[in-house]
Amino acid sequence: MNIGLEIHSLAQRLWPICRSITGPGVRETLSILQEYLPDLTVHEVPTGTQCFDWTIPREWIIREAWITGPDGECIVDFHKNNLHVMGYSIPVDQVMTLEELQENLYSLPEQPDAIPYITSYYRERWGFCLTHRQRQALKPGNYRVKIDSELRQGSLSYGEVLLPGESEKEVFLSTYICHPSMANNELSGPCVSTFLARWLKEQPRRRYSYRIVFVPETIGSICYVSRHLETLRRNVIAGFVVTCVGDDRAYSFLPSRYGDTLSDRSARHVLSHLSPTYGQYSFSERGSDERQYCMPGVDLPMATIMRSKYGCYPEYHTSLDDLTLVTPTGLAGGFEALQRAIEIIEKNRTPRITVLCEPQLGKRGLYPTLGTRDAARQVQVISDLLAYADGTRSLLEISDYIKAPFWEIETLCSTLEQHELIRSSYDVPDNRKTTTC
Amino acid sequence: MNIGLEIHSLAQRLWPICRSITGPGVRETLSILQEYLPDLTVHEVPTGTQCFDWTIPREWIIREAWITGPDGECIVDFHKNNLHVMGYSIPVDQVMTLEELQENLYSLPEQPDAIPYITSYYRERWGFCLTHRQRQALKPGNYRVKIDSELRQGSLSYGEVLLPGESEKEVFLSTYICHPSMANNELSGPCVSTFLARWLKEQPRRRYSYRIVFVPETIGSICYVSRHLETLRRNVIAGFVVTCVGDDRAYSFLPSRYGDTLSDRSARHVLSHLSPTYGQYSFSERGSDERQYCMPGVDLPMATIMRSKYGCYPEYHTSLDDLTLVTPTGLAGGFEALQRAIEIIEKNRTPRITVLCEPQLGKRGLYPTLGTRDAARQVQVISDLLAYADGTRSLLEISDYIKAPFWEIETLCSTLEQHELIRSSYDVPDNRKTTTC
Amino acid sequence: MNIGLEIHSLAQRLWPICRSITGPGVRETLSILQEYLPDLTVHEVPTGTQCFDWTIPREWIIREAWITGPDGECIVDFHKNNLHVMGYSIPVDQVMTLEELQENLYSLPEQPDAIPYITSYYRERWGFCLTHRQRQALKPGNYRVKIDSELRQGSLSYGEVLLPGESEKEVFLSTYICHPSMANNELSGPCVSTFLARWLKEQPRRRYSYRIVFVPETIGSICYVSRHLETLRRNVIAGFVVTCVGDDRAYSFLPSRYGDTLSDRSARHVLSHLSPTYGQYSFSERGSDERQYCMPGVDLPMATIMRSKYGCYPEYHTSLDDLTLVTPTGLAGGFEALQRAIEIIEKNRTPRITVLCEPQLGKRGLYPTLGTRDAARQVQVISDLLAYADGTRSLLEISDYIKAPFWEIETLCSTLEQHELIRSSYDVPDNRKTTTC
Repeated sequence: MNIGLEIHSLAQRLWPICRSITGPGVRETLSILQEYLPDLTVHEVPTGTQCFDWTIPREWIIREAWITGPDGECIVDFHKNNLHVMGYSIPVDQVMTLEELQENLYSLPEQPDAIPYITSYYRERWGFCLTHRQRQALKPGNYRVKIDSELRQGSLSYGEVLLPGESEKEVFLSTYICHPSMANNELSGPCVSTFLARWLKEQPRRRYSYRIVFVPETIGSICYVSRHLETLRRNVIAGFVVTCVGDDRAYSFLPSRYGDTLSDRSARHVLSHLSPTYGQYSFSERGSDERQYCMPGVDLPMATIMRSKYGCYPEYHTSLDDLTLVTPTGLAGGFEALQRAIEIIEKNRTPRITVLCEPQLGKRGLYPTLGTRDAARQVQVISDLLAYADGTRSLLEISDYIKAPFWEIETLCSTLEQHELIRSSYDVPDNRKTTTC
Repeated sequence: MNIGLEIHSLAQRLWPICRSITGPGVRETLSILQEYLPDLTVHEVPTGTQCFDWTIPREWIIREAWITGPDGECIVDFHKNNLHVMGYSIPVDQVMTLEELQENLYSLPEQPDAIPYITSYYRERWGFCLTHRQRQALKPGNYRVKIDSELRQGSLSYGEVLLPGESEKEVFLSTYICHPSMANNELSGPCVSTFLARWLKEQPRRRYSYRIVFVPETIGSICYVSRHLETLRRNVIAGFVVTCVGDDRAYSFLPSRYGDTLSDRSARHVLSHLSPTYGQYSFSERGSDERQYCMPGVDLPMATIMRSKYGCYPEYHTSLDDLTLVTPTGLAGGFEALQRAIEIIEKNRTPRITVLCEPQLGKRGLYPTLGTRDAARQVQVISDLLAYADGTRSLLEISDYIKAPFWEIETLCSTLEQHELIRSSYDVPDNRKTTTC
Repeated sequence: MNIGLEIHSLAQRLWPICRSITGPGVRETLSILQEYLPDLTVHEVPTGTQCFDWTIPREWIIREAWITGPDGECIVDFHKNNLHVMGYSIPVDQVMTLEELQENLYSLPEQPDAIPYITSYYRERWGFCLTHRQRQALKPGNYRVKIDSELRQGSLSYGEVLLPGESEKEVFLSTYICHPSMANNELSGPCVSTFLARWLKEQPRRRYSYRIVFVPETIGSICYVSRHLETLRRNVIAGFVVTCVGDDRAYSFLPSRYGDTLSDRSARHVLSHLSPTYGQYSFSERGSDERQYCMPGVDLPMATIMRSKYGCYPEYHTSLDDLTLVTPTGLAGGFEALQRAIEIIEKNRTPRITVLCEPQLGKRGLYPTLGTRDAARQVQVISDLLAYADGTRSLLEISDYIKAPFWEIETLCSTLEQHELIRSSYDVPDNRKTTTC
């Protein structure tokens, strides 16, 4: 089955669940992911736990939320679209005039058919979200608002997959599971991550270990870092925040703090070959969990490969960010970009030529017999690879230098290794390359 | 009172004085500046004193200089405009034909209404300057030329203000006082410097010491360096030549020898925010006392912030460079640019965040309550400052990196220091950063 | 006599000789060059000698090669144009139909009047080259083909000139002598090299030693490196492959592996002043003996200054690359560019000013007395040279920095040295600058 369709089908299944930063929706989501990833372990962190400067909040349970109008008709119902209720709304059961109600309604005048996504995690209030068109049609009169929610001592839930490799050095993938029914931001993230984890699990050998986490955004990643800081700092040599990898309109890149890590270089290399006009954002335009991972003292080499970037497409954080916007093609493209970036990290090595001057390719059958343009290009690329195989540069650096895709160079390198014209060395990359400009 | 008007009023007072590289005009100028700067000390260096490759010349005294025409009418009179006599003219009292006179007249055919500014410090001759229009109207006949001047053993005069700070490391300002009645080049320089010195004197604390000198150009700065070389080399961590800071048409920048000192970086930062299209000149286009300060073995980190640069505006070195060209607005702008550059040097420090991951701004009231665009920008800037507060970069480097003005970042940094989210360290900058490219 | 005409006249003399990678044509060529260069020694390397990954091939002797047509008429004759026979053709003497003959004919449909240049050094076959126009006119019928050639145990020949200098450190020039009658690629190379060697020989003093070699391309340079590897690695501080230096349409540059050696910097400097729009190629576009010299473990600092680059002009590797395409002017220009690049290497040094602050140029007569624009520029350049004469940068670096030609700066430097305002030091450049990017 086509990978894009498989990922899309998982997204459809997770779509109706009402996720937030805590609560049953997160657990239900993780439980479905466990069907795909038996290695996924779920962890609970109790309300009130201190995580650096933050405290795990109370758990939010939402059972129902609706408004009925002056004639008793149902205006909005959380069960029809979970964006209708503001995330972390406190309970309410009250009759009020339209005027009073308006203060707790949220809509988007510029996108009159979109329901906005609104939350209030750290200030107690309640609210309803609806389309501006519907809001403008509300008649004067008395409305009954009812939110049957609860904020109680509970826990924050997150999932974690650890795949051991030959080295304890790790590649770290982090995605988030705290948004209700929205597709590019965010269902594409956990769904693509799930299939990346399955692909990694199937590999006959892994040079590096892999850590894939499914956390609520911000509080979840802060919590995760606070519990694993030393291990992460010691072992993570590259990593990616997986978010907004589902539509098929664009590729985008957001670098780590100084943009110079192995993750950054791999990602830029992949995107420059998959889509040379990919969107290049600066670290100042960040907005997801790299905000935590790339902070001083944490210093993880986390870059972000995206399709359309959060905040930069019109459907962002509205009901229009749905599973028609996110397509199997878009998901497959997001998956491929991350897969290629990971393959670069796995296969990168430093080649060294074993002969002096150019080797005679012809006597080894390495000289293409057909005189086509493609053959000429291949001879050129082999020749360049041999010339730069001086033991000072990795395949990734050579690929960038000669402007050829890593996957082409790496395949040629393997061939030349088989002919004993190249010997390569594998060095563990330096994960502290986050403080140079 | 508006600072621009105050500076302009000082310039008006100094305007009529006939300054040269030595002589009574320099002393009168310094004496007026002492009214504004009681700390200003005046130094005299005797004729014949050796200063590196140069010798202090004889002192020039000019009492009168005029030409009368065939009908006895007054053609030019030094007392009407001190540009009429060539600087350092030797005495003359002679009757000659127009033809003979022409050899000692100077005018500008392309600017027929401007009197040029001409000097002959190191070759003995005499001359008169006048407008080309007037020159062309001269009738044949006999002219009497009279210059009552004197070149005698005397001294070169300069002024110096030393303002001690917490550190003996110094910021050095140098301006020149050797030009007769011209406004942008040069009265703007000593006038703005005077008000910078007053402002620095009023500061409740100064991290660095300040040295502000008023010298005749070239011979004066060479002389000053020759008397203070070791102190300047040891202590000066930044500095500016103050010249051409009076008109309101442009901002310009001339870097130090390699353009990489703290002075250069501060100046570029200020100008890029005050006037992003400011004129960027190369060190090869220098022409004032940075010619001496930036020479090998002297190696002072001196940059030059200007309004319209010397040599690059049509009125330069003519009678048209007057106090209508130099305006209160222009002077205030020159003052502000230098003031901001000095403030950067004073307030620059290296911040380090005190918590891991992002701090929770909301619980400290640091999250703006109004959801405006400005508020969103401020959150972004706070967030960037915290992310780059990794102890490896100064506020100036961070400001440049995230493209925000230093003064905005520095204010936010102070707030975050008050909330103990940032601790900063102050390092003395390296004043030997003048030999890297 | 004009240098361009002299070089062109040597090219005319060498034109008719049938050169290949081995054989009598190479020896005849070297023997003529010995008339010009009595220091030229000729070396023979026997067939079968192992040179790194390669083996010296059998020697190729070609006596005659022709085709006669159905009516007995001569179709092509090697004695009319030595491009008619494929290089290293094995003997043949056979009658065959036009259809059979076609498989061994080579022509260029897109250049119907050009005879292509084809070789088959490492696979045994035979072939004829002719214009496409002639080929299309061939009538059906029987053709007799006759190639009287021989592949036998023999040797590969190359020539070498060694000119000792004050230092054993060397500048290395390499050119090739394996192409039959073609002018830009290749006769221009050995002819210009011959005159460079004569010019170097005539110099009253040489700071460096010079090694000029005339080798067959690829196998010859590999062979040469294999016999002199340690000496070359130890002594060569700069060098140039001399090829395609004969037409007058363009200047081109091909860098060494990382483009950062003294050769690269000298060449770029010369070309940027001779022809600012010169063609800048990348090392990936290489195609001559720098392919061997710049390989890892050999690491010679070899750059290539060309007129129209091989592979990049329409006449390349055809009979149209002749002595009308290559002109005396073109050859003189190629000679001049290489000569200037060598002069930079010879004369480069690190100047240091001997006084503090600016010296007084006037009292030494160094201040131009004429107030022309040229004079003003010269004062500026002297002033810049003095300012950057800080003992940290060579004349070449200073020339690049202030964007003035080396030859202008070097002349001024000599004058300032005579006036004892500058003292310079000569350092031997680092020849291992080939592994930094």
